[in-house]
Amino acid sequence: MTNRKYNFSAGPCILPLEVLQEAQQEFVDYQNTGMSLIEMSHRGKHFQAVADEAMALAMEVFGAPDDFTVLFLQGGATLQFSVIPMNLLHTGLQGAYINSGTWAKGAIADGSMHGDVYTAWDGADSQYTRMPNDDEIKLKPNTRYLHVTSNETIGGIRFSKWPKVNVPLIGDMSSDYMSRSIPWDLFDIVYGGVQKNLGPAGMAVVFIRKSVLENTNREIGKYLRYDIHAKNGSMFNTPPVFTIYMLGKVLKWMKKEGGLNVMERRAAEKSMALYAFIDKSDGYYRSPVDHECRSHMNVVFRLPSEDLEKKFLTEAEQIDLLQLKGHRSVGGCRASIYNAMPVGGVTALTNFMETFRQANPS
Amino acid sequence: MTNRKYNFSAGPCILPLEVLQEAQQEFVDYQNTGMSLIEMSHRGKHFQAVADEAMALAMEVFGAPDDFTVLFLQGGATLQFSVIPMNLLHTGLQGAYINSGTWAKGAIADGSMHGDVYTAWDGADSQYTRMPNDDEIKLKPNTRYLHVTSNETIGGIRFSKWPKVNVPLIGDMSSDYMSRSIPWDLFDIVYGGVQKNLGPAGMAVVFIRKSVLENTNREIGKYLRYDIHAKNGSMFNTPPVFTIYMLGKVLKWMKKEGGLNVMERRAAEKSMALYAFIDKSDGYYRSPVDHECRSHMNVVFRLPSEDLEKKFLTEAEQIDLLQLKGHRSVGGCRASIYNAMPVGGVTALTNFMETFRQANPS
Repeated sequence: MTNRKYNFSAGPCILPLEVLQEAQQEFVDYQNTGMSLIEMSHRGKHFQAVADEAMALAMEVFGAPDDFTVLFLQGGATLQFSVIPMNLLHTGLQGAYINSGTWAKGAIADGSMHGDVYTAWDGADSQYTRMPNDDEIKLKPNTRYLHVTSNETIGGIRFSKWPKVNVPLIGDMSSDYMSRSIPWDLFDIVYGGVQKNLGPAGMAVVFIRKSVLENTNREIGKYLRYDIHAKNGSMFNTPPVFTIYMLGKVLKWMKKEGGLNVMERRAAEKSMALYAFIDKSDGYYRSPVDHECRSHMNVVFRLPSEDLEKKFLTEAEQIDLLQLKGHRSVGGCRASIYNAMPVGGVTALTNFMETFRQANPS
Repeated sequence: MTNRKYNFSAGPCILPLEVLQEAQQEFVDYQNTGMSLIEMSHRGKHFQAVADEAMALAMEVFGAPDDFTVLFLQGGATLQFSVIPMNLLHTGLQGAYINSGTWAKGAIADGSMHGDVYTAWDGADSQYTRMPNDDEIKLKPNTRYLHVTSNETIGGIRFSKWPKVNVPLIGDMSSDYMSRSIPWDLFDIVYGGVQKNLGPAGMAVVFIRKSVLENTNREIGKYLRYDIHAKNGSMFNTPPVFTIYMLGKVLKWMKKEGGLNVMERRAAEKSMALYAFIDKSDGYYRSPVDHECRSHMNVVFRLPSEDLEKKFLTEAEQIDLLQLKGHRSVGGCRASIYNAMPVGGVTALTNFMETFRQANPS
């Protein structure tokens, strides 16, 4: 295919071309069964093999230890905002949250509907341009967990160092999943939507410490219960068959490319190339976020004026650099450079940025 | 494709071949955009057009009146078991349920976790082989709704006449969606998973009366709130892009084939052909359910012995009549004949049943 473009969408977003092509080839007649995979019973041998492989690959490629289990759950990370306190916050326990921006606020708002939660550090004072140091995080007694958003897709910041506190972490890693290693011993739950690095939208991948499953609240509907999904291998009800199938293919691709370490190194290299270019642009391009907390996935930047930003986005689109617009709530520009974005995409972008700057002095 | 087989799976299940082929063709490069649809931002113009069309088609093809709105929600019908009472059962109100079998029991169990619910008729006494008459349904005061499962996929029974009671109905129509007309004036909510007649697994289609949205409970997480999803056109969070896309294509196919009336007539004809054959088999094949309540989607039948049933299933598979095994909880055989099953599939099945009977006298 010669028409392929550079897609900087924040999610749903770029996926590996070879994965798309393989799925296309198998789509109507799956492995000569005379059926599409999406037409098959999820209890049948073909889909069971697909699901088993995807689950095994998720554990392996993420590097999850045996004391964790992986769940595939519909509703995205957003439904988890409710499910986590529902399952974990028994009476007398509190959930602590780092308010690092848009997504953290979502987790706090929903959490407060289903448990006793509080904000242990608030990034509002610094306009959500940085993450806290450990000594800024204020935990109360009877805190069950500290919830962190590892990377804020909209603000473009991330925890470059994970917090070290005396309660287990719960991490929403939706936008930097499978692009950085996870210190599992710090976490009780790691979760994220699949629609960034992992596959098509429609599911969350949730890693949960097995010992946590022994003490979850069961006085809630079954779809909301972690223990039910764990006991049923994420097939308590009909799972999102196609999403699981695609997740398996993407994980296989990542494994083939060298696994998590390679993804982490590439993400660092691609983002550093972009930030280095921005920093050397004599202030023409500007990263609004704290240097230490710059995201490796979502590179947010501004131009000298909103008019220039508009012109920049229009001209970028014309040379097939797509979806570079910042989130509507913050404006500016944003290049999301997930795992499937080749280095060539970043080079094409910085080349264009240089050309644009010379043609449009501030 | 010459390899296409007859797939009688109860769901996920057969989809129209031309829909699968069209999706395959568009899969890697959607409308010459240089991207797959599943790689695009759900806020972009391409996917917004897909979602708008799917929503408009759902309203049109189902024949939903203007005082309803349609929602696309992850978690299948199963999550709705919790969401319905969470949203509707304010303090002092009760939810009534018809216990018609496996799926109704699921709705009742989850409902009881999130509201004050009771069973208004229990099919256990008749081994879930029939639905109640109106005068058997016992409603208590302060009942907000009567929940019905229009078709029990496992038991193979359906409401041939909708209950007429003095409270609004809520209908789980997962397994006969888009195969029968809906008397909208009786309902406040009609819902169902998409993985039978409507598309690949991973979503529920929920029709809700607009006036109901004005009085839902809002003290719950946002993903669980009907009003939030309605206000955001089912895009409060990242929607299941591919499932919505496929749903749109399947609905377009149904419209082209003649719409709901044609689907309803075909379902009646296909199921009647099968039941008529069973009834004329001198008791060799036997339908265990009440004549009046026979499902038009899931035709459950037994053979003279479990050994013969096993042989029947093995030999059927050999001539490409697939997935005819009854649900593991009830045994026997089940032919699910959803909208995409051609008449030829039913004819092939009855021909085989006749051949099998002659070759294997009881």
